[in-house]
Amino acid sequence: MSQAVACPLCAAPAEIVWQDDFCHVIFAGEHLYPGFCRVIWKQHVAEMTDLTLNEQRHLLNVVFTVERALRTLQQPTKINLASLGNMVPHLHWHVIPRWTDDSHFPDPVWAPVRRNGTIHPAPSLQDLRDQIDHALAELTAA
Amino acid sequence: MSQAVACPLCAAPAEIVWQDDFCHVIFAGEHLYPGFCRVIWKQHVAEMTDLTLNEQRHLLNVVFTVERALRTLQQPTKINLASLGNMVPHLHWHVIPRWTDDSHFPDPVWAPVRRNGTIHPAPSLQDLRDQIDHALAELTAA
Repeated sequence: MSQAVACPLCAAPAEIVWQDDFCHVIFAGEHLYPGFCRVIWKQHVAEMTDLTLNEQRHLLNVVFTVERALRTLQQPTKINLASLGNMVPHLHWHVIPRWTDDSHFPDPVWAPVRRNGTIHPAPSLQDLRDQIDHALAELTAA
Repeated sequence: MSQAVACPLCAAPAEIVWQDDFCHVIFAGEHLYPGFCRVIWKQHVAEMTDLTLNEQRHLLNVVFTVERALRTLQQPTKINLASLGNMVPHLHWHVIPRWTDDSHFPDPVWAPVRRNGTIHPAPSLQDLRDQIDHALAELTAA
């Protein structure tokens, strides 16, 4: 696909937290939110409704598994989920652990900064990977 | 639940686009984005991972049905999906049709306004309702 050639999300990420044949999980590299994860669908499509039902379910199983892993490892005040893709129309999800004392709370992280907020450290790569494997195994067994 | 008593999303919305036993669909009433819809889970829970698998699937079927309906009726440049809930931790989804000439594109709608953008009219209540019914019926038959 010619559109995919120039797409930064079509390239394999430098550091991968977790992957299977269909998606990558990475740390987003947002310095105010070190635990901010991104789940990237490997195929170059734009919208959730461009996927089949089974593909939608698989991607969301991974998204919610990352949510569950972050809740277990970090006990954030709230999880924020978003699939925007205005800048890069290649399907991906933001999974963002939020705390009342972070830089933007209760606003979304895309709003202007509200305060010099606490930067909550990310979980370790290995802990997050283990939690995702564990939660996905539970899901598959359910 | 005592926490639900003070929750604005526990009250029945004034104007309902579509509903079933589990969720409401409404227009969000955002003046720059008249087609911006909100899908509200009726029960007072905070996170997607507080739902059962079947509940997650049902809610997302409705969210993606609204996405599909807006794509069909309005041909936006992109759909934005988000479940944030920092201000009101009662599970709800934003389904936002976006255009390159809207007030914030390509930023999220929560970022500072970029321009005096085009305000794309909402679909009619009846058209949206019909599209949701149609798309959900297709989904159930799939």
